[in-house]
Amino acid sequence: MNYKFSDKVTKLQASAIREILKFTSVPGVISFAAGNPAPEAFPTEKVAEISADLLANDPVLALQYNITEGYTPLRDFLKSWLKSKNCYNPDFDDVIVTSGGQQANELSCKVLLNEGDTLLCESPCFIGSLNAFRSYNVNLCGIEMEDDGINIEKLENAVKTQKNVRMLYVIPNFQNPTGRTMSLEKRKAVYDMACKYDFIILEDDPYGELRFAGENVPTIKSLDTEGRVIYSSTFSKILSSGFRTGFVSAPAEIIQKIVVCKQVSDVHSNIWAQVVAHRFMTTTNLDEHFSDLRAIYRKKCDLMCNYIDNAFSEKISYIRPQGGLFVWCTLPDNCNMNEFCTRAIKEYKIAIVPGNSFSIDENEISHSFRLNYSTPTNDDIIKGMEILSKMTKDILG
Amino acid sequence: MNYKFSDKVTKLQASAIREILKFTSVPGVISFAAGNPAPEAFPTEKVAEISADLLANDPVLALQYNITEGYTPLRDFLKSWLKSKNCYNPDFDDVIVTSGGQQANELSCKVLLNEGDTLLCESPCFIGSLNAFRSYNVNLCGIEMEDDGINIEKLENAVKTQKNVRMLYVIPNFQNPTGRTMSLEKRKAVYDMACKYDFIILEDDPYGELRFAGENVPTIKSLDTEGRVIYSSTFSKILSSGFRTGFVSAPAEIIQKIVVCKQVSDVHSNIWAQVVAHRFMTTTNLDEHFSDLRAIYRKKCDLMCNYIDNAFSEKISYIRPQGGLFVWCTLPDNCNMNEFCTRAIKEYKIAIVPGNSFSIDENEISHSFRLNYSTPTNDDIIKGMEILSKMTKDILG
Repeated sequence: MNYKFSDKVTKLQASAIREILKFTSVPGVISFAAGNPAPEAFPTEKVAEISADLLANDPVLALQYNITEGYTPLRDFLKSWLKSKNCYNPDFDDVIVTSGGQQANELSCKVLLNEGDTLLCESPCFIGSLNAFRSYNVNLCGIEMEDDGINIEKLENAVKTQKNVRMLYVIPNFQNPTGRTMSLEKRKAVYDMACKYDFIILEDDPYGELRFAGENVPTIKSLDTEGRVIYSSTFSKILSSGFRTGFVSAPAEIIQKIVVCKQVSDVHSNIWAQVVAHRFMTTTNLDEHFSDLRAIYRKKCDLMCNYIDNAFSEKISYIRPQGGLFVWCTLPDNCNMNEFCTRAIKEYKIAIVPGNSFSIDENEISHSFRLNYSTPTNDDIIKGMEILSKMTKDILG
Repeated sequence: MNYKFSDKVTKLQASAIREILKFTSVPGVISFAAGNPAPEAFPTEKVAEISADLLANDPVLALQYNITEGYTPLRDFLKSWLKSKNCYNPDFDDVIVTSGGQQANELSCKVLLNEGDTLLCESPCFIGSLNAFRSYNVNLCGIEMEDDGINIEKLENAVKTQKNVRMLYVIPNFQNPTGRTMSLEKRKAVYDMACKYDFIILEDDPYGELRFAGENVPTIKSLDTEGRVIYSSTFSKILSSGFRTGFVSAPAEIIQKIVVCKQVSDVHSNIWAQVVAHRFMTTTNLDEHFSDLRAIYRKKCDLMCNYIDNAFSEKISYIRPQGGLFVWCTLPDNCNMNEFCTRAIKEYKIAIVPGNSFSIDENEISHSFRLNYSTPTNDDIIKGMEILSKMTKDILG
């Protein structure tokens, strides 16, 4: 029969990266296209130990329904942990556990925007969030990214000219895909603008703990005195991505609506993972754990960036990230980026992601591509970057 | 500040049952208001054993990202298992793993309905699904339930008079809240009507394996030759509700859209639970396992219904369920149902759910209330039903 789908989803496509990832199962291909945490960063033994204890002594807790807001001891932990990072204000905030950061961002949009309302975001931007927003038929408007974050003038211009601007979505730390970090000045400017023009900021911070160089920059949430910042993060990069356990700290009124929406989405998030996350976070020396993770990602990033510095064609520019999982490389204007990425996978067997995959409008011309250093083994980074370096010189000289 | 929420969620309220469940933490209250599986029905030892093996030998599988469609071996198992039950047609169907049955129903609505389109459902109906549909601003239209399922004449009348009827949502087996089962004749009539008037049937079957009396009735999905039935079910009642692992069998084109929508909702469902579910289902004697579960629920249902038969006021009517978790009792017309339920909790400390909680329009007058026998212990069923029996006689004579 002939199926009629809702307007919300007819335009929605599986992400372009998924298509590229299909090539990565071809034997011999080295992939810099994914965004998975390094497998060696998972605390597998500790998880096994906590899980065994839980399933032996408290199995019904791990297998029975729980409340939508999240496992209460985990929420309590998150409140105090986020408070210590100035990301939870006990005067007006509340916390909910979500099914990954993805659900946090999706539900924030569902709760606050009508179809046709404007949601501003960085361009390029994380595709997973873009598609979540698209699935609610909102008007997406991308604002150019600079080296130190979103272009403030263009942001203000968009706020003034777009219809019903309700929300700005940003990843201030080690943004996906650019790896860039928003400066404190810009964070302040963005927050001031939200106050002036009365919109909500959705601050997505999945990589915040993965800073392996430079100085920490305060979150936008930490500047929030009016209750207009939704802070979302996840255990995906610091514990396990397969858990699908994320969290949101936001004004209680907003959390209340997110709870109602989450209840109808999935009732609650997998409870085994929530209990394991709680016990892990409260029985681990977190400073040591995060320091171990940073060492893993620092090494992988250095391995990759040293090739860009020393072996890539000099015509490729990039900014060395201070954390996170991604490097953003830009080709010279006269080089066709899509052709470059296609040759990388087809001739050189290296998977990289074309920059326009992260554009609001995929037909927009981009000269950049994204590299990921967290997923490949160190050996594959070396092997792949040697090939990619040679390719850049073959093509660009 | 003053928050403006989307039209979709402003009208959405936390379910009335949640409010009642708050009373159940008051000491001394016996609750027949929940809908949790019996804790003794969880195969806790086997889950612990499978999990230990998984986390010892394949920890990265359990902790890393996986694909949106679901863990491939679990999907393969589901296809052959559902095929054996005539709930998967290899000619046109596909299968996706979802975050519980709740997500299956929510995404089916998101994918197929625009705001304002009509979704028909049984009245009374499962609140969780009603609220999911409401959160997409669709036109909900409830059709009266009879002893053997939905009223077919009223259904056809609604199909003819409502605007853009796109979908019918039904729970044919041991419906929540009424515990009733749709007859084969009505299943056929409903399917024929869907073909005649070109709408989709969303068949929700969380309790199908929990038949402890009477004869099995073929699913509507098993009648589907045109590809217009979405069949959704879950591991919640046969393995673990805390897993949040459900599944959908539907025409491949619909599954494809659900995959894209699920990707933006939560990327994928908790993978530990998916692997454990797969290994449990493929290494357990399922006939024995389901037979154990049925024995547990048969006993609980009998315990409760024997009180209704022998000790309740004769003015209360009900139909003894042949499976599932719920009993639906109806008071005489001259008795105020809401007052009855309030007195039950306040004077008698028995929590029961007022029937109008399950109405499309909560202001509709209902004379029924829902009892649940799966969650309380057998001792509490006896204790609580003794009190409730006395109450019915005190009030109704």
